[in-house]
Amino acid sequence: MNRRLGVLISGRGSNLQALIEATRDRRLDATIAVVISNREDAQGLARARAAGVETLTISHRGWSSRDDHDRVIVRELRARDVGLVCLAGYMRLVGPPLLEAFPNAILNVHPSLLPAFPGVDAPRQAIEHGVRVSGVTVHFVTSELDNGPIVLQRAVPVLDDDTVETLAARILVEEHKAYPEAVAVVLGGGWRIEDRRFVRSATSASSSLSPLRADS
Amino acid sequence: MNRRLGVLISGRGSNLQALIEATRDRRLDATIAVVISNREDAQGLARARAAGVETLTISHRGWSSRDDHDRVIVRELRARDVGLVCLAGYMRLVGPPLLEAFPNAILNVHPSLLPAFPGVDAPRQAIEHGVRVSGVTVHFVTSELDNGPIVLQRAVPVLDDDTVETLAARILVEEHKAYPEAVAVVLGGGWRIEDRRFVRSATSASSSLSPLRADS
Repeated sequence: MNRRLGVLISGRGSNLQALIEATRDRRLDATIAVVISNREDAQGLARARAAGVETLTISHRGWSSRDDHDRVIVRELRARDVGLVCLAGYMRLVGPPLLEAFPNAILNVHPSLLPAFPGVDAPRQAIEHGVRVSGVTVHFVTSELDNGPIVLQRAVPVLDDDTVETLAARILVEEHKAYPEAVAVVLGGGWRIEDRRFVRSATSASSSLSPLRADS
Repeated sequence: MNRRLGVLISGRGSNLQALIEATRDRRLDATIAVVISNREDAQGLARARAAGVETLTISHRGWSSRDDHDRVIVRELRARDVGLVCLAGYMRLVGPPLLEAFPNAILNVHPSLLPAFPGVDAPRQAIEHGVRVSGVTVHFVTSELDNGPIVLQRAVPVLDDDTVETLAARILVEEHKAYPEAVAVVLGGGWRIEDRRFVRSATSASSSLSPLRADS
């Protein structure tokens, strides 16, 4: 798989920062070709520029349809030969033009162990439900919200005195580790999608088992 | 809380065995007052007798209603001064007579990280969904299936080459550890139910934090 990443953001871009640092440290053998934000005030744009990564703002406003906005993003990603798209706090639904242009090649990171707590405010949902274990999921993006094939999950304990904020912060730390690892797994190849499952061949699995362990 | 347990089974009773061993080893300061099965061929009955625990078979057949069956169970539990009821592979829905007789005093162990994969065949659901982390939940039983306040959860990794059987076996090992620990937490007191959450006071939490950690 082409190792050129396009990262889509809407806000602070802390997971973008984690990807930047992982490529810099060579934990992730990939190049961030472009960072695209739908908001020009996204703090993540400054992080990208500080790392010498090209940035674009493509506002979601002013288009006659969401698909038109998506098509412009596709054109810019293709112009830079992007092979894998990483959503990093991108607060827009991904529509058919993007999904069809990058089949099984758009990743997202979600702050829960999906299928538990999809949608917004997952740490709050976890606290209110009273779970004792939550976590992080990196998954492929499909037309169903937060329901694509799961590449990697990490468990995160919920402590007795956790608030939404302390739990969200603990989960975010795991997101920053899990996302670059999942990108590396996907770029490493040797996997297929079977029904709705991300399945790794025995060879690739045994060579990098540890990132997939819940208790590592 | 009264430390006399009543255990309800329908089958092999491996979680009953875990409770028996935990009381014998003094990891769990409790007495199993009675084991009640709704099936006379339940293997767990032999395990109980081998441990010198009284057993009863109260078939679910022949009653004019499920409530009548439940009422007989309540009577037998009360006759033995049971304070906490533990379901251990009990394949019956628990109806109002039992729930009202033992409010916040009926526990169950479920082979997933609820709210993911409630109902039957949770390990199969986990495999088919393609999750990378599943686990075990010990929760209070309420009128909603597999949806009561959660006492304890443990994460269990799903490995690349797992089948339903290998995953179920790995989860079962965790059930056998988690269930006695959760019973000990409940008997230890210092907790309350708040909305749908099991909340421990700071003192009891800090004195036995480790069993609640997902990564321990």
